[in-house]
Amino acid sequence: RINHERFNRYVKRSSEVGRTDNNGLHRLALSQADKEIRDQLKVWFEQAGLTTTVDDFGNMYGRREGKNPHLKPIVIGSHLDTQPYGGRFDGVLGVLAGLEVVESLNDDHIQTERPIVIVNFTNEEGARFPQPMLGSGAITEHFNKSFVYEIQDEKGITFEQALQEIGYVGKEEYRLKEAEYYLELHIEQGPMLERNSKQIGVVGGIQGMDWLDVNVIGEKNHAGPTAMEDRKDALASSARMISTLYEITNSYSGLKTTVGKLHVHPNVANVVPGNVEWVLDVRHEDDTLRMTALDEMRHALKQQAALDGTSVTVNELWASPAVLFDEDVLGAIEKSTDNLGLTRMKLYSGAGHDSKYMPYFGKTGMIFIPSVQGVSHREDELSHDHDLHNGVEVLLHTVMQLDAN
Amino acid sequence: RINHERFNRYVKRSSEVGRTDNNGLHRLALSQADKEIRDQLKVWFEQAGLTTTVDDFGNMYGRREGKNPHLKPIVIGSHLDTQPYGGRFDGVLGVLAGLEVVESLNDDHIQTERPIVIVNFTNEEGARFPQPMLGSGAITEHFNKSFVYEIQDEKGITFEQALQEIGYVGKEEYRLKEAEYYLELHIEQGPMLERNSKQIGVVGGIQGMDWLDVNVIGEKNHAGPTAMEDRKDALASSARMISTLYEITNSYSGLKTTVGKLHVHPNVANVVPGNVEWVLDVRHEDDTLRMTALDEMRHALKQQAALDGTSVTVNELWASPAVLFDEDVLGAIEKSTDNLGLTRMKLYSGAGHDSKYMPYFGKTGMIFIPSVQGVSHREDELSHDHDLHNGVEVLLHTVMQLDAN
Ligand SMILES: NC(=O)NCCC(=O)O
Ligand SMILES: NC(=O)NCCC(=O)O
Repeated sequence: RINHERFNRYVKRSSEVGRTDNNGLHRLALSQADKEIRDQLKVWFEQAGLTTTVDDFGNMYGRREGKNPHLKPIVIGSHLDTQPYGGRFDGVLGVLAGLEVVESLNDDHIQTERPIVIVNFTNEEGARFPQPMLGSGAITEHFNKSFVYEIQDEKGITFEQALQEIGYVGKEEYRLKEAEYYLELHIEQGPMLERNSKQIGVVGGIQGMDWLDVNVIGEKNHAGPTAMEDRKDALASSARMISTLYEITNSYSGLKTTVGKLHVHPNVANVVPGNVEWVLDVRHEDDTLRMTALDEMRHALKQQAALDGTSVTVNELWASPAVLFDEDVLGAIEKSTDNLGLTRMKLYSGAGHDSKYMPYFGKTGMIFIPSVQGVSHREDELSHDHDLHNGVEVLLHTVMQLDAN
Repeated sequence: RINHERFNRYVKRSSEVGRTDNNGLHRLALSQADKEIRDQLKVWFEQAGLTTTVDDFGNMYGRREGKNPHLKPIVIGSHLDTQPYGGRFDGVLGVLAGLEVVESLNDDHIQTERPIVIVNFTNEEGARFPQPMLGSGAITEHFNKSFVYEIQDEKGITFEQALQEIGYVGKEEYRLKEAEYYLELHIEQGPMLERNSKQIGVVGGIQGMDWLDVNVIGEKNHAGPTAMEDRKDALASSARMISTLYEITNSYSGLKTTVGKLHVHPNVANVVPGNVEWVLDVRHEDDTLRMTALDEMRHALKQQAALDGTSVTVNELWASPAVLFDEDVLGAIEKSTDNLGLTRMKLYSGAGHDSKYMPYFGKTGMIFIPSVQGVSHREDELSHDHDLHNGVEVLLHTVMQLDAN
């Protein structure tokens, strides 16, 4: 069994690093706050008797030897970076849960057959460097190194510079290369568990998602003397496009579309915008449906541009097909949940997670616990203590079961 | 007659200060580039034998004594600040033309009856400190001093700090207090002169304009797990609002509406926007029509918010009724134009100008020259040399005529 007080202390300490006025976290990837929690994690790894390594993407690993060191490890992980105004549990839970699992094994002097590796992946959120699950995507060869190193934040700082600045450029040889199992405990970030009064979510997979960079080009001009009929207004055109995209979205059951990031140029009140750039996030469990919807959207964008006298370019920033998790792992999670007398349901993740890329290495599964009101990427994101503890407990039992396989 | 070469030198030098790669100007109010052109203007004032003063809003004056120093002056002015990526003539022309008029009078040893004052108004563009015609509005008591001093730029720097930083905090006692006439030569910034093949625009007045700050409040949430029907998306709602506002606009003949500035919060691709703030610029020559349209727009915003589950607040940043210029001044401009054998037409200004506030002090009129393709607030804004020279010539003749009144 896990130690609630110890786990609560991990959470409490993590909640202080990058804390916002509203009790959330502002701990962008590779920021000073991220450095501080990384330094803390190293200390925790040492206290738990783990060997710490850092790879060339800043991913941090804490390794506990198994009876058979040549066996592939059971990897437990998630991320410690957050949204600019995010919550205390998104990602954080999965890493701290890994620590608590290892400490619980230490308490009982249990040595597992397989090694256990805890991992803190870099820039999962994609909030600072606009490529979510960057660290896990990089080691699984979804992105190459120079691509990753050159990604810039809003201030033009590259990933590589930021990594150097906080002193977390590790070694390529330390990259995780294999895993027998990958397990990630995460808050649901949606309302399904709460609405169905279930304690544990057995995550069947992650929906497919695309990020498209849309650039609408019009003609900058003066807001005063330029008659409406003489304008090529990139923002007016974008507004119509975005309205249409939501109409298209609502015609497909379960499709989710978001324009969360948008920049107007030159962004001055008395200038007709010459150029507006935005990111379109489109998600669905069914890849075929998502592709069909995307085609319809691309077509609608071109059509609206033609009507408005603007032009539009669409660049795929990221395309990530739906993923189904491993049946053996899900079975082990279900059995652990039942053994602990907890209620469960199967669901799919709307959010991306490092688990998305990990099937590349080994059998992967995720455990969800309820998010109050399904709120996430917000400072008031909340999961109750008893739910956090249930999650860690299920994780521990799942590790034990899989290790016995 | 004016000296073309000298005038061209003024233009050339001004075009070097804050020059962009594309031959435009980036000379935001109270920036280092603005300081540099201000320092240059001081030198030019001295060379022209003018007495320089600076008031507490940074407005710069160069005074040439008249035969009757107790008479109210003829004031010639405009502004040397520009848009972030603006042209070389918008505003600049009016100040440099004043200089050339005075130097031409110097050449011929003409002393006018009335004093002549050339003025460079601070922050006419409203691009850095979001209140256009700030300097002229302030001295004519349209804004009070603490309001002006506290306005912040995008970086949170106040007008007062910026003024201090470049060393242009002058004295309250130096504010312009009266004018017999105010004359402003400006590029049209619209296509009417070119389309009608006229050389000089006699400006009948300036259309009324409003700036409304619109704040749409929704609910921030995660783009992945949050179903469309559970969202309160402030950007989706804003897009629909903006589309509707343009429909309303097109139902009123001659109405101009612009959303040029818009900020999304938190502006992250995988976060449903919780809050979007934008500025609505609405203009028309007919104040009653503008008011009616604004009422309809406010109503439409509330209605759309109700449909979207968002809320909206609308704050008036600026409301400026239409202005008609003085008939005597317009008559003098027409006569000068005819005497010089130039073609002319009467038109109304779509852009705001310092002339808008100057009727508070004295009889006001404006002269326009053609803008190539009506383009403005853009680096490729252009007016041909011969048009620039025509404008300065008409200004000189108008000054002479009005002085003789
Ligand atoms: N779990 C999570 O919030 N991941 C961020 C990536 C995404 O789904 O947009
Ligand atoms: N002339 C000019 O561009 N003025 C700026 C103020 C405005 O009209 O928006």
